[in-house]
Order: sequence, then C-alpha cells, then structure tokens
Amino acid sequence: MQTTFPSLSDIQAAHDRIQPFIHRTPILSSSAINEIAGCEIFFKCENFQKVGAFKARGAANAVMKLSKSQKAKGVATHSSGNHAAALARAARVAGIPAYIVMPSNAPEIKKKAVKGYGGEIIECEPNLKARETTLESVVEKTGATFIPPYDFMDVIEGQATCALELIEDQADLDIILAPVGGGGLLGGTALTTHYLNSNIEVIAAEPQGADDAFQSFHAGKIIPQTGPNTIADGLLTSLGVLNYELIKEYISDILLATDPQIIEAMRLIYERMKIVIEPSCAVPLAALLANQDRFRGKKVGIILSGGNVDLGKLPF
Amino acid sequence: MQTTFPSLSDIQAAHDRIQPFIHRTPILSSSAINEIAGCEIFFKCENFQKVGAFKARGAANAVMKLSKSQKAKGVATHSSGNHAAALARAARVAGIPAYIVMPSNAPEIKKKAVKGYGGEIIECEPNLKARETTLESVVEKTGATFIPPYDFMDVIEGQATCALELIEDQADLDIILAPVGGGGLLGGTALTTHYLNSNIEVIAAEPQGADDAFQSFHAGKIIPQTGPNTIADGLLTSLGVLNYELIKEYISDILLATDPQIIEAMRLIYERMKIVIEPSCAVPLAALLANQDRFRGKKVGIILSGGNVDLGKLPF
Repeated sequence: MQTTFPSLSDIQAAHDRIQPFIHRTPILSSSAINEIAGCEIFFKCENFQKVGAFKARGAANAVMKLSKSQKAKGVATHSSGNHAAALARAARVAGIPAYIVMPSNAPEIKKKAVKGYGGEIIECEPNLKARETTLESVVEKTGATFIPPYDFMDVIEGQATCALELIEDQADLDIILAPVGGGGLLGGTALTTHYLNSNIEVIAAEPQGADDAFQSFHAGKIIPQTGPNTIADGLLTSLGVLNYELIKEYISDILLATDPQIIEAMRLIYERMKIVIEPSCAVPLAALLANQDRFRGKKVGIILSGGNVDLGKLPF
Repeated sequence: MQTTFPSLSDIQAAHDRIQPFIHRTPILSSSAINEIAGCEIFFKCENFQKVGAFKARGAANAVMKLSKSQKAKGVATHSSGNHAAALARAARVAGIPAYIVMPSNAPEIKKKAVKGYGGEIIECEPNLKARETTLESVVEKTGATFIPPYDFMDVIEGQATCALELIEDQADLDIILAPVGGGGLLGGTALTTHYLNSNIEVIAAEPQGADDAFQSFHAGKIIPQTGPNTIADGLLTSLGVLNYELIKEYISDILLATDPQIIEAMRLIYERMKIVIEPSCAVPLAALLANQDRFRGKKVGIILSGGNVDLGKLPF
C-alpha cells in the first residue's frame, strides 16, 4: 500500500492552524561565520520557538487536529526530551490533559518543564519496553490519544511548517541543512522543500556517534540505532518508518559530524551569534564546516532545532 | 561654562552616519519573563550588535566624525574591554590605524578581538597611571586622536542612537532601564529619551559592588569608584564628568542589584530567551526583579548592553 503524505495545501493548512500558538521564528546570519564557512548561511532559529524547540509545531498540529471527543480524553506520549514539553504545552493551550511517560532517571529539568506546562508525569523504569507498556496502560486507563514524537503523520506535517517559513522568508536558497534523529523535522523539511522548490537540495546532518540514518540511507533499508554515543542527545533515536520513506525520496545526502566538530560549531554559534543552542542543534553547521567545498559560495538554510541545554554542563 | 550636549538632530545625524556600519538590533520579549516580572519588557538586544556590544555605536560615530587629516593619523585609546574592540573595528571600517593600550594582564580573548579587527596593541603595566602615560606617549609618537571610552561627546552621541531605535520601534514605553558603568550608554539614553518623550522615565541599574553612580547621584557630586567587587566586569569604572551631568539632569533613579541577583537574572535570560549576554548586561533585569512593585503592569524597555562573555566561566 502506498503511503499518502501531506500535500502542500495540507502543510499550509497546518501552518494556519498552529500559527496562533507558535512563534514565526527569525532568520539570523553572521558575517563572521559566513567568512569562516565560505558560504552564506541563513539560520532559522527554532531555538527561539515556544518550548525552545521546533517540536512545538508538530505537537500543536497533532493536538489541534484531534476530534472533539478525542480532545476530551487528552493526549499521551513517552518522551524524555523536547516532545514531552511540547505535547504538554500544546495540550494546555487546548485545555486538555497530557499524560507523559518518562523514565525515572530523566533529568529534573525535563520533568520540571513538563510540570510547568501542566502535564501529568507517569514515571517508569528507564528502558524502552517499560516506556511502551506503561504508555499502553495509561492509554487504556484514560482513553488518551497517543501522539508519537516523530513517526506520525500529523507531527511530520507540523514540523513541515518550519521550512515553509524559511523558504517564504528566504526564497533563493541553494541548500537546506537539517539535523536528523527520528526524522520528523528532516522529513517535513524535505517534503515542503520538494513542493515549493525542488531545485533546493535538502541535506541531512547526523552525529557520527548515532549514524543510523546515514547507514539506513546507504543500505536502502532501515537499520536501527544501537548504542548511540554522542553529545547530540536530541538525535539518539532510530529513524521512523514514515520518516525513512520521505528521506529516501526527497533528500540528496546525509553528512556526518564528529563530537569535537559539533562542539566547535556550537561554540562558534554561541560566540559569534550570541544565541543559546543545544548540542544537537550545532550538527548541521558542524557537517557543513567538515564539507566546506560542497557548500562554497552557496546560499544555505540551516534549521537550528532547539535551545534546551543544561547551562551548567556546556562542553566549553 | 555651560556644557552643550548633542541636540536631537545631532543624534539623528549620528544615527545616519553610523547606520551603514552597525546593526539595527532587534527587540525581543519573553512571555515567561514577563510573567515572572509582572510587567511587559522589551529587550533591545545590543548583544547582537557588531563587536557584540553597544560600544560599536559610539566608536563608529567618533571615528566617522574625525577630519581627513585626523583620520590619516589614526585613533588611540586605553581599554581592556568592549571599547577596545569597538574602536579597532571602527578604525578598520574607516581604513585607518587604531592603537590600543592594554594592560599586560588583559584576557587573551580581548587581545584576540582587537587583533582580529586589525588594531595594534601596545602593552603596559596593569595600572591606571601606566595606561595613561603609555597612551600619552603613543599619541605623541603617532599623532593619533585619543577616543575615550565614555567621557567624550561624540561617543555619548553615538551611544544615544540606541534609544533612538528602541523608542522608534516601541513608542509606548513607560520606563527605560539601562546599566551604568562610565555612563556613556546611560547618558546617551537619557538624552535621547528626554528629547523624544520626556514622559518615559529613565532609570539606571548598577551593581551593588560598584555603586559609584548611585553614590554620586545621591551625594550631588561625583564620588569615584574605589575597589569595585562584582561579577559585572563591564561596569567597574567611575562615572565620567559629562555623563554625570546628563544623569543628574535626565534620569529619575538608580537601582542596585547584588551579584546573586545579577547571576539569577542572567540565567533567566539564557534559559528563557536563549540568548548569550555578559554579566553586566543582566544588571537591569536584576534591578527590576529586585524592585518589582515599581514596575508592575508597566511597559519597560531594557537595553541589553553586550554579549562578550568567557563561555568557559559562566557563573552557572
């Protein structure tokens, strides 16, 4: 069976739907970084997004699309990252409950964010099986709708609105670079870019220590991530099924960056642009700087995915 | 003798003069910080300014106003902070030499910034007397024009352009808060605000550990700073003479903030706004939060003065 992905008008409708609840984030440039990189970079600053990450888009879209009876019973997910906070916030905006299954060892700051948005945290053992069975029992008990973090059409459709704004504001790009973890942002970006201007190349950036998308892209099938080891803690998950289909079809390449390269790019962004980003967010610039010839003289859009970082643990 | 300060049209002319060489910095808000503060805050982000600080304005204005024969001989100053980098950059833009006297113990990163802009560093013993005599001999040898960091009309006129943009972009402010060190930014802000809308109160914010402006304001005469002790390392200097006259005339109050309050405000700005600022830059928000009743329900402009901070030494 052929999967049907959102059309351009679906993505535009998603943008209209979530617009009251998200920021239209700015696009920033740095002449100093352009000089170092040898190309012209336009940073789409989703670190300034609500909840500090692009995840606010997909979660808002998925929640707003629920039927009235679904909304009445709330939403649920398992996540220890930005999706947890994003879903809790989207639910609060919609005035419905959010049940967030989190591993008992999740950082206190992440739990605090979810609670701050009024989400109800259900703790479980820190392993995937416990997360899944706990989520199942929460869904069974509450009747809440499970909103997965990336392998879910309405979430992908929401993340796709980020590239919509980027290309609207900066039409003459040659390349768009986005990070890849589960592939929600990357898949949505690839889809929107394909519709709006298929001459713009979409390239993924992935940490070398969690390179399942790279492996999958080259093997022609999904190869799950095992034992990820990278500072880019937002990109540890395996590629989703829907996301893999989009990536296979619409992106031209996946470039890798090592942790030292990621840290160096992160420092450049802090020092030269004076903005706070999380390590995962620096992966596209790191990959660009590790492959400068490929980008020389081009106009490159980079999606800065988020800014939720423990300031006490910066790697410099 | 009455001092003649720049008129509004002088300040507007300064803005036209330096506009090609500076950023029109954005004004950002944070609903989370507004909620905590109990008022509506508009942050004028001079941390995004060229050289990472408002100092780019005054230095550019002073350099551009030099005569052709003065320009030919270059400019000189003694500074270990943002003025040093700002003057070196302004000189490079104008294609003239900059001689920067710096104490031998100035941080490597500050020296690097000056060198990066093509400034020539002349090292001296780390005390004010050595700085002054070394500067004198540099000026004598080169014929360069001394551009002081704050107690200088063309510099004040340049710093005054910051409030011009702030009030143009956000006309309905009740209060503007600016930090005070030497008083260049504060003096210029007070002057512009007086001209454009004297109903807007201008309030200064100063670290308790370097409170000479507070002491001077209340004593009715300049009381020099001795033994400053604060994390806000951009605000250690004594108030200038010209700056004191402006402050006496045009500001309504000076509020103090302790170092723990400054660090807490700094953390709030990093965490909630996802932007990088230097400690001095957090003093106005810290002073506001320490005096919340005074600001409740008001529209407050805060000038974020700069973002040049050693990332390896953040206080959290």
